[in-house]
Amino acid sequence: MSELKMDLIDNENKKQKPDADKIAFGKHYSDHMFIMDYSTDKGWYDPRIVPYEPITLDPAAMIFHYGQTVFEGLKAYRTTTDKILLFRPEQNFKRLNLSSDRLSIPAIDEELALTYLKKLIEVEKDWVPQAEGNSLYIRPFIIATEPNLSLAPSETYQFMIILSPVGSYYKEGIHPVRIHVEDEYTRAVRGGTGKAKTAGNYAAAYKAQERATKEGYSQVLWLDGVEKKYIEEVGSMNVFFKINGEIVTPELNGSILEGITRMSIIELLKDWGIPITERKISLEELYEAYDQDKLEEAFGTGTAAVISPVGELNWGDRNMVINNREIGEMSKKLYDTLTGIQTGKVEDLYNWTVEVK
Amino acid sequence: MSELKMDLIDNENKKQKPDADKIAFGKHYSDHMFIMDYSTDKGWYDPRIVPYEPITLDPAAMIFHYGQTVFEGLKAYRTTTDKILLFRPEQNFKRLNLSSDRLSIPAIDEELALTYLKKLIEVEKDWVPQAEGNSLYIRPFIIATEPNLSLAPSETYQFMIILSPVGSYYKEGIHPVRIHVEDEYTRAVRGGTGKAKTAGNYAAAYKAQERATKEGYSQVLWLDGVEKKYIEEVGSMNVFFKINGEIVTPELNGSILEGITRMSIIELLKDWGIPITERKISLEELYEAYDQDKLEEAFGTGTAAVISPVGELNWGDRNMVINNREIGEMSKKLYDTLTGIQTGKVEDLYNWTVEVK
Repeated sequence: MSELKMDLIDNENKKQKPDADKIAFGKHYSDHMFIMDYSTDKGWYDPRIVPYEPITLDPAAMIFHYGQTVFEGLKAYRTTTDKILLFRPEQNFKRLNLSSDRLSIPAIDEELALTYLKKLIEVEKDWVPQAEGNSLYIRPFIIATEPNLSLAPSETYQFMIILSPVGSYYKEGIHPVRIHVEDEYTRAVRGGTGKAKTAGNYAAAYKAQERATKEGYSQVLWLDGVEKKYIEEVGSMNVFFKINGEIVTPELNGSILEGITRMSIIELLKDWGIPITERKISLEELYEAYDQDKLEEAFGTGTAAVISPVGELNWGDRNMVINNREIGEMSKKLYDTLTGIQTGKVEDLYNWTVEVK
Repeated sequence: MSELKMDLIDNENKKQKPDADKIAFGKHYSDHMFIMDYSTDKGWYDPRIVPYEPITLDPAAMIFHYGQTVFEGLKAYRTTTDKILLFRPEQNFKRLNLSSDRLSIPAIDEELALTYLKKLIEVEKDWVPQAEGNSLYIRPFIIATEPNLSLAPSETYQFMIILSPVGSYYKEGIHPVRIHVEDEYTRAVRGGTGKAKTAGNYAAAYKAQERATKEGYSQVLWLDGVEKKYIEEVGSMNVFFKINGEIVTPELNGSILEGITRMSIIELLKDWGIPITERKISLEELYEAYDQDKLEEAFGTGTAAVISPVGELNWGDRNMVINNREIGEMSKKLYDTLTGIQTGKVEDLYNWTVEVK
């Protein structure tokens, strides 16, 4: 690769790093961030690492009005031997471009983006936490910046990467969660933006989450937008079930996010010779399996939690308790293997990790 | 009403106003804007009119990541007797609150918001264009500003109003447009955010619009997200048809925007004693009516165009030419009446206009 051309403006006012025990998710940011601009005539230009600081936009910037924006989420982990590892970061930039395509945002060079990210992490290496279970959350995102109220794709954009040290998702051990089936609100539908990581999908989900929280549930289970019959996601995670020894997960249909943790789990299970099927799964089928004592495990998957076991599922007056509200054997094995690979404790047989030197 | 408490910081560097003939939509902004802040402990506070200037936000501000934002669009018109009129502005603030409810954004005081808007227009009265057909486009919007990557409603917001002088939508006379039926992409679905004016809905529609433009069409006709069978909207407008002497428009179903122009047209037609029905309309039904020579007119309705006649509708290999590609009698009468009331040329029998003194 040719020499990397990128400006670096050092932040002379370094912040104090938060206490490992007291880190709240997404509230602390490192000293620097990455920015790159886009215009229709120049393409992507001026990649730079600058002090973390507020950004200034015209009030008519299109991000505020028409929602042209995409993002990604991944983590950097510090191993016990003090290496810094990223987990399949090339998949995040690949997905960022897929999301951008849906939102009419210009693609970035995926390989260059990874180089920029690695450089940023290198500059901010002291921000990758030491403590067990902690990590540095990485948020790449693109926003439409042209000041224009016309309904058309923006002619200018900013691509940014910010970094946020985060604590362990499971400070008090893994406790299976209570899930509420959402049958009124819809997260996504075929032909919509469900498989894109774009802002609009997330705010649209708050209303259902608020109701679930009020009723004592942790997350909602989303059904398909067409028939309100098939399972799509749980909260902002993909979802898996173990039914009669077989693992099943909803097939990718355009409205389900194509999770990188999801993909890794499928690859692991295949490698382990465990039957895994991607297909439509109706809620009815799930309750039938439960009634026949065949529903053995259920878990959500995503970057934040990796694996989030489901202990209870509630659908109107039909309630099911899964695996006695305990984490299942398969969920545990997947969690240990994935987090083990991510943090360098388990040998990475799949070349998933990328070291930042 | 008690005395209005609001700061006003004058802009000493007034801009030159654009030529009436050369105004591009949404590219010029007036000298001042309105801002008000929200925090969970203070509620909405510090309403102020300040110079139009860039806003500064943390890169982790929630608007950039999770899309919690709503907006409105309305216009101020200058009458031939030099009065400034708003058209049903209380409806816009009512709808803004309905949109906010869907997006888990705190409500504003609708009456106060209108007072703030009137004060802003008063300060910027020279920005309301004189020229026939021109007007001052008003964009109220709310954005989530808390720097936090957690998936939860923001604890802080900004409500802003910016103003943009706009030219006549029909500089070269009203030409009926060619519309392409979109049967792959989906704009909205029941349980989603279709009836809210929120950013995510708009960027999601670009992909379909791009394809339609490439194929020589002006806009797309959106079908329902569930069955892909019933007509919902055209472009970013509501849609009406005249079939065999009766006017029909898709009924409000949660995924259709509740247009204020739409509402006004229904009220006008009822007042005129012309049959108007809000109901489901399938594309099949429309083509059948066309084949039987009963489809007399079709038009989109919205703040920008008021009435936009449809001259041609294309669905795969089925093409229909409506009213010989000319504006229909009813479309014309509605356009003349509505724009007449808005600009003070036609007596406002309905108390729809609000004067800014």
